[in-house]
Amino acid sequence: MAEQHAAQSRPAQPGPAQPHIPRPGPYAGRPVGSDREALAVAIQEARDGRAGGGVPIGAALVVDGEVLASGHNQRVQLASPILHGETDCLANAGRLPASVYARATMVTTLSPCDMCTGAILLYGIPRVIIGENRTFYGAEDLLRLRGVEVVVLDDAECVALMEEFIAAEPDLWNEDIGEE
Amino acid sequence: MAEQHAAQSRPAQPGPAQPHIPRPGPYAGRPVGSDREALAVAIQEARDGRAGGGVPIGAALVVDGEVLASGHNQRVQLASPILHGETDCLANAGRLPASVYARATMVTTLSPCDMCTGAILLYGIPRVIIGENRTFYGAEDLLRLRGVEVVVLDDAECVALMEEFIAAEPDLWNEDIGEE
Repeated sequence: MAEQHAAQSRPAQPGPAQPHIPRPGPYAGRPVGSDREALAVAIQEARDGRAGGGVPIGAALVVDGEVLASGHNQRVQLASPILHGETDCLANAGRLPASVYARATMVTTLSPCDMCTGAILLYGIPRVIIGENRTFYGAEDLLRLRGVEVVVLDDAECVALMEEFIAAEPDLWNEDIGEE
Repeated sequence: MAEQHAAQSRPAQPGPAQPHIPRPGPYAGRPVGSDREALAVAIQEARDGRAGGGVPIGAALVVDGEVLASGHNQRVQLASPILHGETDCLANAGRLPASVYARATMVTTLSPCDMCTGAILLYGIPRVIIGENRTFYGAEDLLRLRGVEVVVLDDAECVALMEEFIAAEPDLWNEDIGEE
């Protein structure tokens, strides 16, 4: 098992890591006038992720009424265990000063896991919009405890995206939440 | 300010994101017989990071008595807000089954921030070795509360690395912990 894994994760000749170029995504600059409009961007990211063979969870970082960056889970597409919807979105936004995070809302289709909750707390993002928390209940209570405003929209399309995915690819889903 | 940031983070023609190739790092496969030996690998990663112009925080994932992967903070080198020592290490390790994380120890030169704490919790890593928590006290109490074994080695070299860095680049450090 360890041998098998070792072979899998140690390519003989990995190239040098490439500097990350901020990629705010196809929805950057879109004005959003409501929480539902903001969620629509995250849902489109989730759909884009699913269309690319991945986990259908999307996110958007909204600042001053427009999308600053968006992203989606990249476990499959980029073989990354740390690029969930929210963290991919933060990576796509690039390095930002605290003053920008302080005006930001993180919008995500699914209740944020421990890691993404921690990322939101690290950067002091004061508001989080969650599409749904029925198929997975993350660490949103910790967000509330730390003073973050959490809005759960209980969106039927977000639920449907996850239900379809979990039924189709339970192993991938369990890997993504550290359970398999 | 917002305009200035927008210009900075939205290149006109970003290329497509590159699939992440697991890069377990130069110390993968090294046997470690003690917590201090494990920390020495994380310290070497921190030094490597500092030598590359970055934040001197390093990490290693130890499984079954050897280094599975290592990494260091890549805020400067890869312009990433989500690649701290621990998350870079997890990214370098690639996709792993829960059974591997369950046997793992995360070794880090500095008390883990909220995000890295969350990543450790997400993947159910049961043991964390921390070089020092004098220059920054992260969310290690949450780790303990959630049943993770936390060992703080209070290592003088880890303290010295951070003290030198914080004195030399306070703005960069404050950006990295979301305070500036």
